[in-house]
Amino acid sequence: MTVSHYSVRLNAAIQAKRTPALVGLDPRLDWLPPDVMAHARELHSDPAAVAAAAFEEFCVRLIDVVAPLVPAVKPQAAFFEELGPDGCLALARVMRYARNSGLIVICDGKRGDIGTTAEAYARAYLAGADPQAAPWHADALTVNPYLGRDTLEPFVKVATERGAGIYVLVKTSNPGSASFQDRQADGQSIYRHVAQVVEELSEQTAVDGFGCVGAVVGATYPQELAELRSAMPHVPLLVPGYGSQGGAAADVGAAFTATGLGALVNNSRGINFAYRSAPYAEQFGAKQWEAAAEAATRRMIADLAEHTSAGVL
Amino acid sequence: MTVSHYSVRLNAAIQAKRTPALVGLDPRLDWLPPDVMAHARELHSDPAAVAAAAFEEFCVRLIDVVAPLVPAVKPQAAFFEELGPDGCLALARVMRYARNSGLIVICDGKRGDIGTTAEAYARAYLAGADPQAAPWHADALTVNPYLGRDTLEPFVKVATERGAGIYVLVKTSNPGSASFQDRQADGQSIYRHVAQVVEELSEQTAVDGFGCVGAVVGATYPQELAELRSAMPHVPLLVPGYGSQGGAAADVGAAFTATGLGALVNNSRGINFAYRSAPYAEQFGAKQWEAAAEAATRRMIADLAEHTSAGVL
Repeated sequence: MTVSHYSVRLNAAIQAKRTPALVGLDPRLDWLPPDVMAHARELHSDPAAVAAAAFEEFCVRLIDVVAPLVPAVKPQAAFFEELGPDGCLALARVMRYARNSGLIVICDGKRGDIGTTAEAYARAYLAGADPQAAPWHADALTVNPYLGRDTLEPFVKVATERGAGIYVLVKTSNPGSASFQDRQADGQSIYRHVAQVVEELSEQTAVDGFGCVGAVVGATYPQELAELRSAMPHVPLLVPGYGSQGGAAADVGAAFTATGLGALVNNSRGINFAYRSAPYAEQFGAKQWEAAAEAATRRMIADLAEHTSAGVL
Repeated sequence: MTVSHYSVRLNAAIQAKRTPALVGLDPRLDWLPPDVMAHARELHSDPAAVAAAAFEEFCVRLIDVVAPLVPAVKPQAAFFEELGPDGCLALARVMRYARNSGLIVICDGKRGDIGTTAEAYARAYLAGADPQAAPWHADALTVNPYLGRDTLEPFVKVATERGAGIYVLVKTSNPGSASFQDRQADGQSIYRHVAQVVEELSEQTAVDGFGCVGAVVGATYPQELAELRSAMPHVPLLVPGYGSQGGAAADVGAAFTATGLGALVNNSRGINFAYRSAPYAEQFGAKQWEAAAEAATRRMIADLAEHTSAGVL
């Protein structure tokens, strides 16, 4: 059986939507719009069930807003897991809904373990080209490399078989990412050692220039982003930190090839909760939270098109 | 409100059971005993529901076997997640059952993320002294340090508040753990840099000598285990790799203080599926899988008592 390669599907989606904007799905109970909470309270009384129903409705409505505009979404597993098993069920439903809406779905779980345990995570999340191939329906999963190269290989194996992808943490967007990632060892930083492994694994799986092994590199470190784009030519990037974390479009320009491919730029809070912040709070308010999310998404798309090579898409 | 400190509760449990043996709960569908599968098939027809019911029965019966013998169990999240939302519900039920059976429960999820996302994982898993404080009911969670020190701190904050613990991956048991962990940077290995942060965080939270920030150090690296025990005097260790992965009791001796405290030694497959391997397969067979698990647990306890300072407990 031939399965469609992850990067081929991803690049087709980026070209079809003419943007590399990625919308994070980060439901946070305290910030959900009142109408979403009211609907959930009509259906349930148990607090975890209320929260899970609210997360699901919020994400489904957000997917309806962004599916015509962007190629991919990235649900953050932690917020769903915080609700317990009810939240996990909501996460699975949200990922299925996103797939059925024609979106590439990147589950942000930052998983990692050894041997057959790593393979269990891979089989759980990496549905790939066939949405039914894994219970969590994801096209791709974020993966933590600390345990070592042999613990990435089971993910690559399953990803290759299924037309799925992984994004390995290389240089993360947080202020403290220097603690271990920036340590200099044998002439280069640890994140460069990780990058070298990621490039090797991705080159081995490349079709049309890109492999199925991606890398997470924060927009908050523009110099490292440029360095890593060049060190990992076969690697699709996932760039968090745009917007709320302080990264600007000019900072992410180096992530792209001349044809506007090679990276997805993520925005979570800035889109999910646009209605709570300037300039959208004044213009829209809580009742029009979807219009605020749409305006924030369109603004990000225009910002990337203006300041990066994504403009040629 | 005063909450009981994680290490105080853990050490009391180790002294009450007079062993540092930790039983991993690693249900694997292909290896489950026939009677467990038959019961699950009587109750359900959907494959994920059958598997989840089988995982739950298997783990509950295993907990009944080991609860009188050992202080703690360590469910592996990956195997449950592989079943999708049904598996997550089974995991929550298994952890609650283990807590109600008087066991310390260490959820092996190897989570890690930045800022408020890390805090969401912490709040999800770290119930600590009050089993109802988090939907996953765990006393402790394994955590991946790659993202940096600032991403460990939210876990430490929640753990301190709730009387819970975390175990940070320092030197893992897999053959490829050298890839990044053993790189020499600024005069010492990356795992030593991680160990230094873990020791600092644990010293700040220490009561009676041990803090709530533990470390995972593989039994398969006895020299590094000795080095790390000495580098992290306030840190409770979780030592995987005994048994199926090749570690022997003599290899883990260095993990303990003179009073037999300071470490838990994990065995998963060797106990869970003792009935499938020599010498238990011949003696017990599949129908007596619980007797095989009990014999394997007692053998491990005796082995640790004979070859390490755990004998003085």
